[in-house]
Amino acid sequence: MESDRAMSPKLTVELLRQLRQAMRNSKYITEPIQAYIVPSGDAHQSEYIAPCDCRREFICGFNGSAGTAIVTEQQAAMWTDGRYFLQASQQMDNNWTLMKMGLKETPTQEDWLISVLPENSKVGVDPWIIAADQWKNMSKALSNAGHSLVAVQDNLIDAIWQDRPSRPSTKLITLGLKYTGMTWQDKVTALRTKMSERKISWFVITALDEIAWIFNLRGADIEYNPVFFAYAVIGRSTIRLFIDVQRMTDPAVREHLLLDAPSAVEMTVQIAPYESVYTELQAICATLGPREKVWISDKASCALTEVIPKAHRSPIPYTPLCLAKAVKNATEVQGMKLAHIKDAVALCELFAWLEKEIPKGTVTEISSADKAEEFRSQQKDFVGLSFPTISSVGPNGAIIHYRPLPETNRTLSLNEVYLIDSGAQYTDGTTDVTRTMHFGTPSAFEKECFTYVLKGHIAVSAAIFPNGTKGHLLDSFARSALWESGLDYLHGTGHGVGCFLNVHEGPCGISYKTFADEPLEAGMIVSDEPGYYEDGSFGIRIENVVLVVPAKPKYNYRNRGSLTFEPITLVPIQVKMMNTDLLTQKERDWVNEYHRQCREMVGAELEKQGRKEALDWLIRETQPIA
Amino acid sequence: MESDRAMSPKLTVELLRQLRQAMRNSKYITEPIQAYIVPSGDAHQSEYIAPCDCRREFICGFNGSAGTAIVTEQQAAMWTDGRYFLQASQQMDNNWTLMKMGLKETPTQEDWLISVLPENSKVGVDPWIIAADQWKNMSKALSNAGHSLVAVQDNLIDAIWQDRPSRPSTKLITLGLKYTGMTWQDKVTALRTKMSERKISWFVITALDEIAWIFNLRGADIEYNPVFFAYAVIGRSTIRLFIDVQRMTDPAVREHLLLDAPSAVEMTVQIAPYESVYTELQAICATLGPREKVWISDKASCALTEVIPKAHRSPIPYTPLCLAKAVKNATEVQGMKLAHIKDAVALCELFAWLEKEIPKGTVTEISSADKAEEFRSQQKDFVGLSFPTISSVGPNGAIIHYRPLPETNRTLSLNEVYLIDSGAQYTDGTTDVTRTMHFGTPSAFEKECFTYVLKGHIAVSAAIFPNGTKGHLLDSFARSALWESGLDYLHGTGHGVGCFLNVHEGPCGISYKTFADEPLEAGMIVSDEPGYYEDGSFGIRIENVVLVVPAKPKYNYRNRGSLTFEPITLVPIQVKMMNTDLLTQKERDWVNEYHRQCREMVGAELEKQGRKEALDWLIRETQPIA
Repeated sequence: MESDRAMSPKLTVELLRQLRQAMRNSKYITEPIQAYIVPSGDAHQSEYIAPCDCRREFICGFNGSAGTAIVTEQQAAMWTDGRYFLQASQQMDNNWTLMKMGLKETPTQEDWLISVLPENSKVGVDPWIIAADQWKNMSKALSNAGHSLVAVQDNLIDAIWQDRPSRPSTKLITLGLKYTGMTWQDKVTALRTKMSERKISWFVITALDEIAWIFNLRGADIEYNPVFFAYAVIGRSTIRLFIDVQRMTDPAVREHLLLDAPSAVEMTVQIAPYESVYTELQAICATLGPREKVWISDKASCALTEVIPKAHRSPIPYTPLCLAKAVKNATEVQGMKLAHIKDAVALCELFAWLEKEIPKGTVTEISSADKAEEFRSQQKDFVGLSFPTISSVGPNGAIIHYRPLPETNRTLSLNEVYLIDSGAQYTDGTTDVTRTMHFGTPSAFEKECFTYVLKGHIAVSAAIFPNGTKGHLLDSFARSALWESGLDYLHGTGHGVGCFLNVHEGPCGISYKTFADEPLEAGMIVSDEPGYYEDGSFGIRIENVVLVVPAKPKYNYRNRGSLTFEPITLVPIQVKMMNTDLLTQKERDWVNEYHRQCREMVGAELEKQGRKEALDWLIRETQPIA
Repeated sequence: MESDRAMSPKLTVELLRQLRQAMRNSKYITEPIQAYIVPSGDAHQSEYIAPCDCRREFICGFNGSAGTAIVTEQQAAMWTDGRYFLQASQQMDNNWTLMKMGLKETPTQEDWLISVLPENSKVGVDPWIIAADQWKNMSKALSNAGHSLVAVQDNLIDAIWQDRPSRPSTKLITLGLKYTGMTWQDKVTALRTKMSERKISWFVITALDEIAWIFNLRGADIEYNPVFFAYAVIGRSTIRLFIDVQRMTDPAVREHLLLDAPSAVEMTVQIAPYESVYTELQAICATLGPREKVWISDKASCALTEVIPKAHRSPIPYTPLCLAKAVKNATEVQGMKLAHIKDAVALCELFAWLEKEIPKGTVTEISSADKAEEFRSQQKDFVGLSFPTISSVGPNGAIIHYRPLPETNRTLSLNEVYLIDSGAQYTDGTTDVTRTMHFGTPSAFEKECFTYVLKGHIAVSAAIFPNGTKGHLLDSFARSALWESGLDYLHGTGHGVGCFLNVHEGPCGISYKTFADEPLEAGMIVSDEPGYYEDGSFGIRIENVVLVVPAKPKYNYRNRGSLTFEPITLVPIQVKMMNTDLLTQKERDWVNEYHRQCREMVGAELEKQGRKEALDWLIRETQPIA
């Protein structure tokens, strides 16, 4: 979506002048503020955001996914991490100082503010786009140094952003039992059971995927994420949905939510405007009895969190919906499997096509990504991509969060490794798959590294572990073969995947970085994606989406039960890239069994769809290895 | 040490009456308190404590290593964990309620107090034996419920404990360069360098092993732990040691600390009475400049922590001494290796002796443990045991923290598995080793489990991993083979080991339970001790002490360097217990190479000591496996 943007810096002199004026303008604040913080996020702390929420990009020009800008009366600085140092330095003009996070000499935002602010300064921030826990930390650090953090209700970027896009309000999709396996009413009832178990009166839902999930609705307000802007507040006998009320004129939505049918009061969805959540939550809180408690995620906005009086507030790291959503029911699992078979069909088509086209020298990273999208869009119930395709050749593959741009676009060839990490949204499920291929003859070193990555992928995928095990305890299995040769990769091994929802979701994953993840349980779906990146040369990653399933090993210690993974992604892993001498017999058996499944499941679908060339490719690529 | 105690409950009616009287006695408190908390620890938060500090045992009778007693006007309750449910229920009379921690229905101490206390209650605790962070949590919970936690300066247990033992003040041992590799002056200088890097003016040392380490002194105040009661406060040009001043009359100690020699003021050790640390620290804090900071462990006592005004206090999870002590220098490594060879000699003697004696039916768990101690005591520089020997036969082996008592004592036989976990203090090092043996014919299941445990042991011991890796990331390697068969063990895999110091020390280890451990680095010494416990039947554990050493794999990703482990424990692992069919070639090679080292290093020492029978045993037990 951003491939047409040139890498020249945005000119910000005038914008900064206007922002600084706003920082002194009594229309917005009672007293002038000496600094203004512009975080990345939206009011729902979404990972991906809508154009109207790209405020940090608007003020500084940098459009990466992570970064915080701070503007003082004299200075402007932007903090981002190692993935984005180059991009940020290219996109920002010299009114901005790039603060390279992770480098020893780089001050934290707090330390920098304290070092540059005059005594007794006020630092402003929009309380809707800063999470409650971040507010707390920043506020404490500033107070300790004699300054204060103040909530500026009107967003000062919006105040100077003349052509700011309006908040999207796309058509809603209603999902029936066929896709969800559970009515929204049953989801509300299950939630209420958990609320009464924990003596909770109200639950304020702020995460967009949780709202989409509980109401069995989807939208397209944010690219790649089938969500819609809304808040919901669920009481023991009340359901309130805060949303652009225009969207509720759609007859399908009215019927889905039973807005016109007489239903029991506790299952009546009360609709109110999106913006009214603040005042309505205030009204609810005014009615709270002395011991009543309100659940809200500790990652919710400071603004909404503060509405709930502290004595009634019960902040939680993972909401019950986040947990419930992560454990897919039988219908969702079935949908995810179907989506992955269709997705595999598209990728088999792509790889068969690439094999033919690459020798002509006309395929580029961008055209290959476009072709992948084209093949996917031919599949039933295709909705869109689930994230921007990473299509990278040779050295570009070593840039972990690479996206091809016209000025970096390389041509696929017989001489370089090709890495494609892509996925799609289908009405029945979300996909995310990475394959690394060579269309000529890979070097011995490329094969060696690929094989270590494969061994790590298999070690996780085939691992058997007790019920109750947290995903982070499996992370080292993915690295063991690489470590043994002195290699490693600097990212986690896996993330939760939604079902026709966000491609990244909590509360489980497989990463050395987290400790507070929830234990894996049967029905959870995560990615398994170890990699290896040789800077300036090539990148390797092998990613399947896998389902947590019960395992039945020989024994059952303390009746705890065991779990393992079942691959849902069914795309051949290129044998040409393997040094099979480095594989154990068990690993070879795993590869052969995996390829047998690909041939059987995807082969049948390719046959049904009459895609002969892709089927030939699949059969050839899934021949057993010795 | 406790084997002569009968398992009948302690009668506590009179003691509780006296304690409740003290809780109202204005001699100790200005206003009556409604509850009194008696934690396990001493004023240094030691893992093992001296008899004079066994206050919780005194009041309730329960003498396990972990437990907290709380006495209110009407009730008395004691919280302990699953290891001790049986023992606690046997040792406490029915004035006490046993609170089984870890069970869902068991209230926390805070919740229980809130449920039983009248409104506006005061809960007392000795601020010297509660850690600052524990105080904070308890105080917060009580305040939220309208009560308050109050510091009772006089310990109320001491007030009613008529024959309370006096605080030990054993003879100090001075350690020269030959053992420490670094003078205490150089250690102080290195510490001061770190203090000035972090702009710290003072460091209050409260952990007994840190004080012993920095001064190159040892004591015997606490059984198994060669430490002595003291505090130390190090400034940028001051060294203050708070200790029973009588101990400073020893000429060797005076010379070691240069108490009579004229030395530079910044290296002059100022001696003051142990008890004066409180007032002296107050005096130091009164002189602090506005920006001066004082380091203190966040696990230090509430009493001492509170002396430092909050603005000057810099609490740290791991002190610089804890970190420095963990990385052994070349002299310490050499000493640890020598100690382990001597220890292996003693164990070879024991096992050769057991082989001969067991068939006679006269060897018991207790007599075997005694024999092990006897053999160890014959070795040079033996000081004592490093922890109570776990000597367990058959079903007793499945009790992880088992210690043989006369009423549980089993006879070793040709029919049951024998597990011995033991270690000693030598002037040159500390040992800790577990071996599991069968002197008849083990069952196929026993062998199978043993082999999984061995595979886990080898997986950790032979692991290669990048510099900077935390030990908890290796924990799953130890479990993988067990998990694959549905088995597991419910304890961590390894702990740090001191050098002629505590057998358990931070800040590194190998456990799924921790996340805040410090990265492993070359020179650190930890245990590697996976196990398997079949309740009511047998226990298996294979424990070596291992040294973190640099590894040189084929590649060196981002110049990070790699690490691995070198076994320091050199005692044969019983081949008879292995099902070698389950071992990979790599694992067989590891066993053979390990046994070659045992034969070479320990064999030479056995030969030198003329211990022929043990040598024969060693040679037979270290024959290569196919």
